[in-house]
Amino acid sequence: MTAYLAGHLADIRAAAERIRGAVRRTPLLGTDLSPDLLLKAESLQVMGAFKARGACNAIRSLRERSPEAAGVVAVSSGNHAQAVAWAARAAGLPARIVIPQGGNPLKVAGTRALGADVVTDGVTFANREEVGRRIVEETGWHMVHPFDDWDVIHGQGTAAVEVLEDAPDVEVVAVPVGGGGLLAGTALAVRALSPQTRVVGVEPEVADDARRSFADGRLHRLADTPPTIADGVRVLGLGGRPYEVIVERRLVEDVVTVSEAEIRAATVACWQRCRLAIEPTGALPLAAYLAGRLGGGRAALLLSGGNFDPRVVAEFLRDAG
Amino acid sequence: MTAYLAGHLADIRAAAERIRGAVRRTPLLGTDLSPDLLLKAESLQVMGAFKARGACNAIRSLRERSPEAAGVVAVSSGNHAQAVAWAARAAGLPARIVIPQGGNPLKVAGTRALGADVVTDGVTFANREEVGRRIVEETGWHMVHPFDDWDVIHGQGTAAVEVLEDAPDVEVVAVPVGGGGLLAGTALAVRALSPQTRVVGVEPEVADDARRSFADGRLHRLADTPPTIADGVRVLGLGGRPYEVIVERRLVEDVVTVSEAEIRAATVACWQRCRLAIEPTGALPLAAYLAGRLGGGRAALLLSGGNFDPRVVAEFLRDAG
Repeated sequence: MTAYLAGHLADIRAAAERIRGAVRRTPLLGTDLSPDLLLKAESLQVMGAFKARGACNAIRSLRERSPEAAGVVAVSSGNHAQAVAWAARAAGLPARIVIPQGGNPLKVAGTRALGADVVTDGVTFANREEVGRRIVEETGWHMVHPFDDWDVIHGQGTAAVEVLEDAPDVEVVAVPVGGGGLLAGTALAVRALSPQTRVVGVEPEVADDARRSFADGRLHRLADTPPTIADGVRVLGLGGRPYEVIVERRLVEDVVTVSEAEIRAATVACWQRCRLAIEPTGALPLAAYLAGRLGGGRAALLLSGGNFDPRVVAEFLRDAG
Repeated sequence: MTAYLAGHLADIRAAAERIRGAVRRTPLLGTDLSPDLLLKAESLQVMGAFKARGACNAIRSLRERSPEAAGVVAVSSGNHAQAVAWAARAAGLPARIVIPQGGNPLKVAGTRALGADVVTDGVTFANREEVGRRIVEETGWHMVHPFDDWDVIHGQGTAAVEVLEDAPDVEVVAVPVGGGGLLAGTALAVRALSPQTRVVGVEPEVADDARRSFADGRLHRLADTPPTIADGVRVLGLGGRPYEVIVERRLVEDVVTVSEAEIRAATVACWQRCRLAIEPTGALPLAAYLAGRLGGGRAALLLSGGNFDPRVVAEFLRDAG
C-alpha cells in the first residue's frame, strides 16, 4: 500500500471511530434479483442519506481541532443540508444553511425543523456559494463543503469499510458520482483494503462531466445545472480533492453513465423488487448494474439516499402499475 | 416456563435451524421517528414477506417426515402463494396454488414465474378451500395452510427470536393479525424467551374479529371479506391453532385495531420517514404505534411485507406530496 493510501485509510478508520453511535451501520442486503447482488442501503441512514457520515465526521473533527468553533455554514439544497443541520445540533453548534429560493419546501422545512437557520432571501443557484462565503467572513463560522473537504470524504469512505467487512469477497463496488466526495472516499477505502475490488462511479448521461474528466485526464465542468431526475448529482463538476483521487491518482476503475429512462426503471425496480424506498439518485448504481455496465462478479451497490419527492415517485409507480 | 411453551420453543428453534441459509435474517432497523422504535423489516425477506419462513419450514419438515412426498398445494391469493411456490421449487417439489379468478394479475404472474401450477378456472373466494381439498384428494399432495399449521406457525416465530437476539431489552413486539399464524408464532417465541415483553396483535377496525375473540374468549368470524386496504389480513377469522395460542392460552397481551386512515398514514410515514417500501398490511403495527395504542417503552414492530400494488401506493404518495 502506498503512503498516500495508508494515510487516507488511517483517516477513514479514525472517522469510523469518531462517528460511531451517531450514525447507523446500515445493512448490506441481499435481493431477489440476483444472488451476486448486494445493496448497501444508505437510504436507511440517519436523515435518509450517506451524507450524515461526512457531516458528522467534519463537525466532530472541527470540535476536536477547534474547541472554540462557534458555528457551521453549509451551502446545499439537498441531503447535505439536513445532514449538517442534524450533525450541528447533535454537537451543540448553531448551523446556517444557504438554500436557493424556490428550493424543495419539504427539504427547507426539514432543515429548519432540525434547528438550523435557513437563508434563502436573495439566494440563487448562481450566487449561493458567494452568499455562503460572505456568511463565513461575517461570522467566522466554519464552512462544511458537501464534497471538497477531506473530513467529509473520509466520513463517506466509512460506508465502503462496512461493505468490505460484511462481504470481503465483493468484486465491484459502485456508487453515484456528483461532486465526487462519496466516490473518492469509497475509492480510498477499497483500494487500501481490497485492491482487487473494482470501484465504479455512476452518473447520468446528461451530467457526464466526471466520465469525461476520467477519460481524458483533465477537469470537465458542465455549463449548466444538468436536467436529470437524479437531483442529488446536479453538480457542475468534481471538487478539487475528489478530482485528485479519481482522475489524477486514478484510484477508480471506471466512471460509467446511465440514461434518464434507465434511472427511472431502476428506481421502480428498487421499490418494487427490493422494497427499498430510494430517491432516483440512489438508483444510479442499480441502473448501471441492470444495464450490464459494471462488468461481472459479486457487486455491492451503494444506494445513496431515500429522500424522494412523493409526487415524482407517485408518477413513476402509477406508470409502472 | 411451562412444558407447552418449552415444546413450542424447541420447535421454533428447530425451524430456525431448518430454514437457515434459505431465508434471510432481516435487519432490525432504527428510524428517525423515535429512538425507542425498531422495525423488523420482513419486507426485505425473500419474496418480500415473512411468509417465506413458515412456507420453508413446512416444506422442509414435510421432506424430513415424508421423503416420498410428491408435491404441495396451497390456497392463497397473496404472499403465502409466492412463498410456497418459492419454497417448493427450492425443495424440488411441484406446487399447485389455488387463486380465485380475478386475483391480482401481478401476483398470479409472480407465482407462475416461480414454476408453480396456478389453478384459477372456476375458483371463487367462496369455493377456493374446497378446490384445494379436492386437489389434495386427487393428487395425494400435501396442503400447506397459510396459518393453521404448526410448522408454519413455528417458522413465523423465528422472526421474533431474531428480534430478541438483536434487542433483548425490547418491551413490546407488535405484529399484524389476520389468520393469526404470525401472532401465534411471535407469542410463543416471546413468552418463552422474554416473558416480560408484551406481544400485541394489530388488525384493521373493519376486520376486528381477533380483537373480539380475544376480548370475550370465544371465536368470532367476519361474515364477509372485510373492506380493508390491508389485503394481507382479509381473512374471516383466526385458525384453530392460532386461536389456541392467542385466545385460549392468552399468550398475547392485547389485540388492538387501527382505522383505514391510520393504516394509510402509517404506510406513507413508513415510505417517507423510514424509507421502507412496504404494503399497507405491513404498516398495521406502525399505525398502532403512532396512535399510541401499544403502550410505552422500547417497541419492535414487525413490518410483514413489501408486495404493494403500485397504483395504490401511487395514490397515497400523490396525496401526501
